[in-house]
Amino acid sequence: MAQDMTLLWGSGSPPCWRVQVALEEKQVKGYKDKLLSFEKMEHKSQEVMEMNPRGQLPAFKWGDKVLNESYAACLFLENQSQFKSQGTNLTPDCPNELALMYQRMFEGFTLGQKAGMVIYYNYLVPEGERHESAVKRNREALSAEVKLWEGYLEKVKGDFMAGRSFTMADVCFFPNIAYLFHFGLCEKRYPKLAAYYNRLKTRPSIKTSWPTTWLSNPQKSDLLKDI
Amino acid sequence: MAQDMTLLWGSGSPPCWRVQVALEEKQVKGYKDKLLSFEKMEHKSQEVMEMNPRGQLPAFKWGDKVLNESYAACLFLENQSQFKSQGTNLTPDCPNELALMYQRMFEGFTLGQKAGMVIYYNYLVPEGERHESAVKRNREALSAEVKLWEGYLEKVKGDFMAGRSFTMADVCFFPNIAYLFHFGLCEKRYPKLAAYYNRLKTRPSIKTSWPTTWLSNPQKSDLLKDI
Repeated sequence: MAQDMTLLWGSGSPPCWRVQVALEEKQVKGYKDKLLSFEKMEHKSQEVMEMNPRGQLPAFKWGDKVLNESYAACLFLENQSQFKSQGTNLTPDCPNELALMYQRMFEGFTLGQKAGMVIYYNYLVPEGERHESAVKRNREALSAEVKLWEGYLEKVKGDFMAGRSFTMADVCFFPNIAYLFHFGLCEKRYPKLAAYYNRLKTRPSIKTSWPTTWLSNPQKSDLLKDI
Repeated sequence: MAQDMTLLWGSGSPPCWRVQVALEEKQVKGYKDKLLSFEKMEHKSQEVMEMNPRGQLPAFKWGDKVLNESYAACLFLENQSQFKSQGTNLTPDCPNELALMYQRMFEGFTLGQKAGMVIYYNYLVPEGERHESAVKRNREALSAEVKLWEGYLEKVKGDFMAGRSFTMADVCFFPNIAYLFHFGLCEKRYPKLAAYYNRLKTRPSIKTSWPTTWLSNPQKSDLLKDI
């Protein structure tokens, strides 16, 4: 039981979601969790700022151990001795799959950034600094990035991002790709990514932690339909 | 001996440097390495593109295992069974230090991004899209970020980023902070960061891998002197 563990999260945020998936996979039970609203700016509330001075979600701690960065939380849950032998082993033994897992995990940062620059352009860039040329370039960069990932799934030997088993690469990547489909990425244009997405979305850790706000609103917009 | 290991690198690049520090700490010997020039655009050469289609350095492989993302390479070298018991143990056993190590490692991404948006603004943003207001905002964001890190070192119990031992947090962070000082960050304004930097720069793994282009040119500019 992890009664001294607390997760503050926002619905639909890939960083929050990957921590929730890791907690499910590692069978961590009994932690306190609280859903906050980005729309209501609750990620800048005092409650969050006290746990995460960056004013971001997730805010996650276990006793006095602070793990607000989602990759940090996931790697800690996978590698710390108390959780290591618990739940799913998310780290492959095969050196080739291990290398691929790490490589894809960190390439995932780039995908997340490029998606953010398209989806949140107006939020990130003040009105007087916006340019059509930048919007176009950001969309082209995201398109090239998504094609790379489609290619990775064409080549991988197995159903998962790093091969034959569900690993940290999937914990980190799945919320990113689900987010893109939620914003209208075309399943027909990316058949391998769509198959991966549809295969994994019924996995218990993912289904259980599915963003609450998406249940009533499966697709938020068609912003990415031409990507 | 790691004769089937190849590292293509550029001098002064924090991602390249952290892989070199990790290789030194893990006492990996006999790998092939080749210094390429960013100025001559050699990171877009066919030799690099074949190893890293993103056209970035480092390009790093061990046999058929590709680890071009610097964090991926470092974590692989630390955790793969062949290297795990070799050289320095870069992962603390103490759960508190382990949590801090992961948290700082991934906050380091944010520092790197904010530094990049100041140092490479003109490279990243086409001429017609540049704004003084963005330059000012980026500099303020970097200043706030560096202050956070100064605060982390004020509080940490020990000489290193995650406490009493040199860990992956230092492997990842040191090249970032050295880079900021190379671009003129003021040592007097950030005494804890300066002390950390001066303490670690004589560590053998760091001294041996010191960027070759910095030896004859210790400070590149004073771009960051007011940060």
